[in-house]
Amino acid sequence: MKILLIGAGGTIGSAVDKELSQRHEVIRIGRSSGDFQVDISDSASIRKLFEQTGKFDALVCAAGNVTFAPLGEMTEDSFALGLKDKLMGQVNLLLIGREFANDGASFTFTTGVLSHDPIRSGASAALVNGALDSFVRAAAIELPRGLRVNSISPTVLVEAMGSYAPYFRGYKPVPAADVALAYAKSVEGLQTGQTFHVG
Amino acid sequence: MKILLIGAGGTIGSAVDKELSQRHEVIRIGRSSGDFQVDISDSASIRKLFEQTGKFDALVCAAGNVTFAPLGEMTEDSFALGLKDKLMGQVNLLLIGREFANDGASFTFTTGVLSHDPIRSGASAALVNGALDSFVRAAAIELPRGLRVNSISPTVLVEAMGSYAPYFRGYKPVPAADVALAYAKSVEGLQTGQTFHVG
Repeated sequence: MKILLIGAGGTIGSAVDKELSQRHEVIRIGRSSGDFQVDISDSASIRKLFEQTGKFDALVCAAGNVTFAPLGEMTEDSFALGLKDKLMGQVNLLLIGREFANDGASFTFTTGVLSHDPIRSGASAALVNGALDSFVRAAAIELPRGLRVNSISPTVLVEAMGSYAPYFRGYKPVPAADVALAYAKSVEGLQTGQTFHVG
Repeated sequence: MKILLIGAGGTIGSAVDKELSQRHEVIRIGRSSGDFQVDISDSASIRKLFEQTGKFDALVCAAGNVTFAPLGEMTEDSFALGLKDKLMGQVNLLLIGREFANDGASFTFTTGVLSHDPIRSGASAALVNGALDSFVRAAAIELPRGLRVNSISPTVLVEAMGSYAPYFRGYKPVPAADVALAYAKSVEGLQTGQTFHVG
């Protein structure tokens, strides 16, 4: 399979790369590193990416930014980054990418535990993750040509606990390698419209 | 209780009005009808509303627009209405309204069944509903002064089946009066961070 991996240099992306490159051709994509570059918050940048990569069999997005801030300090503007980047960035990867997707190709997006197990400062992350998990469920039933879409919803990563531990007290972290298995299930299996929770 | 009811003239709003006005002072708010007017997609209009209504004990929003269209015809722009109106409109009612909310006041928002039980043309509705249900769960744990927030997620209404039946084959519709009970539970009970599913 030819797999486009967006966010290939990140903690999850590196683990997905290691898992999938054993069996597939992985095209590594980053904001500034990798074989190709993309800014997922910009639909023109997304289109340009697909024109460079050509047709593909699977797309994995392990990228996406949101604003973390105490709810008391949040305004409408605090939600803009999450809506434009992690949410509509991934939605646009499907809306634009489907033109370049081979029959039976899959899209695998990244959400996270905060949609249903929230922490302080996580309101925007929760909103975006919940939006994507529901979008995936709805979009899957309308996709033609055997196209599939799933989301992976990991809890906090072992590798991220150095900086995130104070925000995730009491959460049992999972190794990125375990999270990568869920991406493999989405890409190499046949399920669609699912959210795979890890952790 | 002084209750602000946005969307008071709609099918759900009318039923909520009937349920709550038996026991409380209901201020009826609409886009063009009611005691006061608001365009929830415009944060300036929201602020002006609260300056007119003054302090309140409960806010219920039974309003919010999204675009319904086949996924195959949707672009990024097809999601803009839902993001700006039903999603950020309700989020902004909390972000701005909390300044005008009395201690212990509640916010009750409207989502819907499509987040987890999707139909054709419902991708934007699903995304918005899922976003709000998760936002409510996250925001609730950060609200000060005993403020509460919940969402009501109804299935299709008996009263809407005249026009919506072809889109909701196999769904068992619920009367708006039953849906109104969930709003009463949110407003008059003590739960917070919950999504009450009706139907």
